[in-house]
Amino acid sequence: VATIDPRLGRELTAIVGEAHCLLEPELTAPYCTDWTGRFRGKTTGVVRPADTAEVAAVLTACGRVGQPVVPQGGNTGLVGGGVPRDGELVLSLRRLHSLAEPDGEAGVLQAGAGTTLAAAQAAAAAAGFELGIDLAARDSATLGGMVATNAGGIHVLRHGPMRARLAGVEAVSADGQIVRRMDGLVKDNVGYDLTGLLVGSEGTLAVVTEVLLRLVPTPERRITALVGLAGATEHEGQPGVAAAVTVTAALRRHLPGLEAAELILPAGMELVCRHAGLPRPPAPEAAAWLVIEVADSRDPTEEMAAALEHPLVLDAAVADSEGPRSRLWAYRERHTEAISSLGVPHKLDVAFPLGRLAAFAAALEVELARAAPPESHLICFGHVGDGNLHVNLVGPAPEDTRLDDLVLRLTLAHGGSISAEHGIGQAKRAWLHQARSAADVAWMQRVKGAFDPDGLLNPGVLFDRST
Amino acid sequence: VATIDPRLGRELTAIVGEAHCLLEPELTAPYCTDWTGRFRGKTTGVVRPADTAEVAAVLTACGRVGQPVVPQGGNTGLVGGGVPRDGELVLSLRRLHSLAEPDGEAGVLQAGAGTTLAAAQAAAAAAGFELGIDLAARDSATLGGMVATNAGGIHVLRHGPMRARLAGVEAVSADGQIVRRMDGLVKDNVGYDLTGLLVGSEGTLAVVTEVLLRLVPTPERRITALVGLAGATEHEGQPGVAAAVTVTAALRRHLPGLEAAELILPAGMELVCRHAGLPRPPAPEAAAWLVIEVADSRDPTEEMAAALEHPLVLDAAVADSEGPRSRLWAYRERHTEAISSLGVPHKLDVAFPLGRLAAFAAALEVELARAAPPESHLICFGHVGDGNLHVNLVGPAPEDTRLDDLVLRLTLAHGGSISAEHGIGQAKRAWLHQARSAADVAWMQRVKGAFDPDGLLNPGVLFDRST
Repeated sequence: VATIDPRLGRELTAIVGEAHCLLEPELTAPYCTDWTGRFRGKTTGVVRPADTAEVAAVLTACGRVGQPVVPQGGNTGLVGGGVPRDGELVLSLRRLHSLAEPDGEAGVLQAGAGTTLAAAQAAAAAAGFELGIDLAARDSATLGGMVATNAGGIHVLRHGPMRARLAGVEAVSADGQIVRRMDGLVKDNVGYDLTGLLVGSEGTLAVVTEVLLRLVPTPERRITALVGLAGATEHEGQPGVAAAVTVTAALRRHLPGLEAAELILPAGMELVCRHAGLPRPPAPEAAAWLVIEVADSRDPTEEMAAALEHPLVLDAAVADSEGPRSRLWAYRERHTEAISSLGVPHKLDVAFPLGRLAAFAAALEVELARAAPPESHLICFGHVGDGNLHVNLVGPAPEDTRLDDLVLRLTLAHGGSISAEHGIGQAKRAWLHQARSAADVAWMQRVKGAFDPDGLLNPGVLFDRST
Repeated sequence: VATIDPRLGRELTAIVGEAHCLLEPELTAPYCTDWTGRFRGKTTGVVRPADTAEVAAVLTACGRVGQPVVPQGGNTGLVGGGVPRDGELVLSLRRLHSLAEPDGEAGVLQAGAGTTLAAAQAAAAAAGFELGIDLAARDSATLGGMVATNAGGIHVLRHGPMRARLAGVEAVSADGQIVRRMDGLVKDNVGYDLTGLLVGSEGTLAVVTEVLLRLVPTPERRITALVGLAGATEHEGQPGVAAAVTVTAALRRHLPGLEAAELILPAGMELVCRHAGLPRPPAPEAAAWLVIEVADSRDPTEEMAAALEHPLVLDAAVADSEGPRSRLWAYRERHTEAISSLGVPHKLDVAFPLGRLAAFAAALEVELARAAPPESHLICFGHVGDGNLHVNLVGPAPEDTRLDDLVLRLTLAHGGSISAEHGIGQAKRAWLHQARSAADVAWMQRVKGAFDPDGLLNPGVLFDRST
């Protein structure tokens, strides 16, 4: 436990009110551990401001005494970027959950940074719109956190990641200055794209307090399919992954409304069926499964049936109403909890040019069979249309990062990214210099220095503390 | 004429070769005036490096003696951002015109910054792809310049502006450091989005030397229509613009393959027909025309015919092969040269929430009728699907900016952007503080300072020299 500067404690209490300035360890504990249980640290306290003005006042007060701050949303991050490490103050944004009526004419939705994705989705749906972004943590993940990590999810294939969904942002800098770019114009080439720069900056440049999201009209028809695939043994690499890549490429050509193409492999399918008590999937002996989703203003049933007449497709279950669609999605979405039931997972989120994905997956299986403890579980799944694989390894102790290093080394050797959508956080900080050139890291550090010269915003995330 | 430091002159000659280091006024003159003739300045010389290494060497040499530099591509910019002002060295990137084979599997095309848009389009087309970006200056505009200005054009409606088309970039900083982010991954959340930050930075942060562009498959069918509209007199605002906004919104709902919706108004139509000798358009007495384009993997003819059965549509000419399609596009694309034939135009590129566009256009006509010299011509056209209007005014002297100020003041009063796609350059520099808050400008200046602490890259563009 770290102790807060008493004067700062009084100031913060005056700003946010006593009920929202938590200084006792039993109150701050839930904010100090990430949900996987892998990242935990100590804090001097937790403040929960009610609005942007309070956020600015908190940052100004902290800046005066050099108190470092960790912004936190729904605490669903996977790289330890939203939990304190060594006495930082936790700035919880969850009370900034304002939610405006969707603006159908301009096609945007304005919401506070603490609004959950699910709440924003519900507001959009009530007006006949969608957000074009969706992920399994929707009930807890907040919009501000999703901006901070440039969250991806299952619809990136069609609608892009959070950076593409963001029409505007309001943020507060370390010195308490508020910048609003909330006009929501499609075109606005007036100086640097600060909005885009804040996306994916992991709370190290400024604190996001409000967002403007682009809306897409709710499609008239949406069809989901769970498709069992034969292994593509004639291709290089892991046969199930190779089949998924091949079939997804064919689906993209023939289904303009393709929104999602999610990969499940046999180890994950077996685990999720057992853990969640799901019935046997189509083609139970398949080398891989795809969860695909097509949305269109025209009925895509025939097009989808034609596209699924592919030599690698063994069998498919198709659903076009909400209950049955959810039951198909469960095979993919309940992976995370099923994996956590085995122990604390090492989670690595890597991406490749599509042509390299199967080769990486094959090399990964070989190398881990050699290096991992025999009782380990390797479960891979992911967003195959984006070349994005989520590698989950349960077995090694949470603090043992040797196998994480192995996975990331293998990723770079295959021309991949060490973080597709989760960010760098503290988990992959040591790898930044492997993934980016020295000149690139130097440019990023200059940007950091320009926004946060005293290093008070999320220190130890993205960069080493010393830099 | 400004004179170069003799030692720097020798160094630059040694780097790029005598033939590509132009120091005589008769050789440098073409680089010192923009193509509208409105912006002209003096230079100490023009260097034309052959590759990235030479660019880095030039910037290093200039940095040593504090010689400011203006990067220049095809010199088709409209805000004076690519021509020297007061003795800057012109760094012409046109010799960096390398062009790789399109990578169909990854869906990307690698090209030097000096490659023209037309050359890149041709390379993509030969492999069955398009770039998803197109604009009338395609034969001269270079990819690097299009990155620097976040160029828009006629397909933003469907494929976004240059920022959305860019999968990777290589750039050189003022101190000669080279950063490459050319992996072309769909997802890569490894630190700050420097690629996106450089887009639209107008040569003030770094010099773009190479780009990786996203490809889209060439659609199987493409249909163009020139559509004459009745004035939407029941709506608020300029009746032709209101009709174009209303019809475009309807087309977007019913034509998923809609790629372009371009507005022409009677004054522009009359001028372009006369100047370019074009035949009378459909519905010659229309209040406005739309050039619309639909591309799809399925034949969109019937869908388009159904969508055009709108009460505001008077008549339409439709074309589905290249020659006839070009003849319809000529009405829109020959506007620029037709306007220039009247004199040196004041060009203002403004954007609005769609619901405000017609009101702005009406107010503009009223205010200019009052304030402009009687012999002036006001020609507005633009990308109506993006809320983007190009305001052209011929009549006032090139250096008389009072009416520019009137247009921009009116733009801000209607909640619009003072630069939709052309950038700030020198033309709108004085307006930056009206369009962005003091805190916002301060953040941008910090970014500028982080990349270019000595202010050597494009001084006088975006910010005042003093800042």
